[in-house]
Amino acid sequence: MADLLVVGSVALDSVTTPFGQATEVLGGSATYFSYAASFFTNVHLVAVVGEDFPKAHLAALRDRGVDLSGLRVARGQTFRWVGEYGFDLNEAKTVDTRLNVFADFQPSLSSAHRKVPFLFLANIDPELQLEVLRQAERPQLVALDTMNFWIEGKRNALLEVLAEVDVLLVNDAEARQLARQPNLIKAARAILGLGPRTVVVKRGEYGALMVSDGSFFFVPAYPMESVLDPTGAGDAFAGGFMGSLAQREKTDPASVRRAIVFGSVMASFTVEDFSLTRLDSLRSDEIERRYSSFQDLVRFEI
Amino acid sequence: MADLLVVGSVALDSVTTPFGQATEVLGGSATYFSYAASFFTNVHLVAVVGEDFPKAHLAALRDRGVDLSGLRVARGQTFRWVGEYGFDLNEAKTVDTRLNVFADFQPSLSSAHRKVPFLFLANIDPELQLEVLRQAERPQLVALDTMNFWIEGKRNALLEVLAEVDVLLVNDAEARQLARQPNLIKAARAILGLGPRTVVVKRGEYGALMVSDGSFFFVPAYPMESVLDPTGAGDAFAGGFMGSLAQREKTDPASVRRAIVFGSVMASFTVEDFSLTRLDSLRSDEIERRYSSFQDLVRFEI
Repeated sequence: MADLLVVGSVALDSVTTPFGQATEVLGGSATYFSYAASFFTNVHLVAVVGEDFPKAHLAALRDRGVDLSGLRVARGQTFRWVGEYGFDLNEAKTVDTRLNVFADFQPSLSSAHRKVPFLFLANIDPELQLEVLRQAERPQLVALDTMNFWIEGKRNALLEVLAEVDVLLVNDAEARQLARQPNLIKAARAILGLGPRTVVVKRGEYGALMVSDGSFFFVPAYPMESVLDPTGAGDAFAGGFMGSLAQREKTDPASVRRAIVFGSVMASFTVEDFSLTRLDSLRSDEIERRYSSFQDLVRFEI
Repeated sequence: MADLLVVGSVALDSVTTPFGQATEVLGGSATYFSYAASFFTNVHLVAVVGEDFPKAHLAALRDRGVDLSGLRVARGQTFRWVGEYGFDLNEAKTVDTRLNVFADFQPSLSSAHRKVPFLFLANIDPELQLEVLRQAERPQLVALDTMNFWIEGKRNALLEVLAEVDVLLVNDAEARQLARQPNLIKAARAILGLGPRTVVVKRGEYGALMVSDGSFFFVPAYPMESVLDPTGAGDAFAGGFMGSLAQREKTDPASVRRAIVFGSVMASFTVEDFSLTRLDSLRSDEIERRYSSFQDLVRFEI
């Protein structure tokens, strides 16, 4: 079992969906990632929060075994995100973003953290992602998430960091935007030319697809009769994905496929409730059972 | 190998997509269905065309082994459809529809046709579908396609015929509309309560899903770098699906899953070119090879 490091955001979210709302609850890309990955391996979290960050949230992360030595508490307020979803749960509408202490986030890895073999660069400024990558000492596998804001606004920095990562995880609109190519299959292939040897495209209710070395892999989304809050699904996916790879210390094609299914499993649990509520009560046997259900969902005979 | 009967439309289509156009080419739901199914079993086509219908099209259907004894040539013009697609190939825009002889279509099955064990009711007026069903003599399996126009305008007749069919094939918007339920999974389950024991939801570039007896099955769409014309994909899907079931004369869950994959295979070939062009040159070994590719697309280890 190898250790896993994530650099990203820890936030307080206020979310409204057609099925309810939650105010100032635990959120942030690195939080969802850490929670999901903690079911698979030892997770080290590098992020920043403000002095107002509730102690209970720190305790909850520690309860999941997450190493918080890289979580800096800075003077000021924690990053806030206020978002809203309509009945099309694939699309979040950002009502308000207050970066607060996150605006001055300058990730600095401890000497122990520099040696962690599995590294996930959550969706932050690609210049910071590049900065983290420079500090890391030859990790075995680096994966990266990004978003339309950076693809448009910091394309050059993003291309620079992309050239050095192994796996890119994005949603379908981001893949098309990054490759400047409307056909998703062509877009995914084109991204392989930018550096990553594997591209994982998250498609919300339509599942995920992976392209690597000319080979495609599809996994459906778990059939859900009720999605309460899609926030964090993509980060939990990444957590399950990277956690599964780090747990086995393998990155061969079969392990990458397994990891994508574990990513889908963790995303499916996450959206069953607001914030980290469902992951808080999740048990390992539930993860294993849902993994088997995914096999049933796609199985057919030759 | 069991025989297969389809009742539906034969048309002359004029289609414009971002990748080209085709004028007055062979089209219609029963045509695409027959072509696709003809790779698997003996197909009997029940439809109507006008006196202007090109002899070459009849010859092409006969070349595929399709029995045209149920294809009536009526006085007047053949059904015309003029459609257009934007870059979102999931959505056809109908520019013009001229029913012509199809407006008076009154399907009447010969005594031989009444005994055909596999029956597909392509997307026509549910009152006509019901009429065909009344004429058929205890078929082994009946599947039905429909569309928003009938769901809205002839709901009662549609519910009546649905109560007597085994399989419903629809797209996702139609499933939601029919069940009056925005969640697709709930919608599919609700439709099972209306009669069919199996619902197959076609999702275009997102593949297809099946729900039957509380069990779900997903198949992705084949990863295509180039789709020239999506017209007929759903009907070719139905043709591959029903053709595969009739070929083996089996309707158990494993056979239904295989059939859905063969449906996806036939749809994927159809959209590679306009009209029936790709299916005209298709070989059986290409079908088998693509079926195996689908296995590779979803395979992962427990």
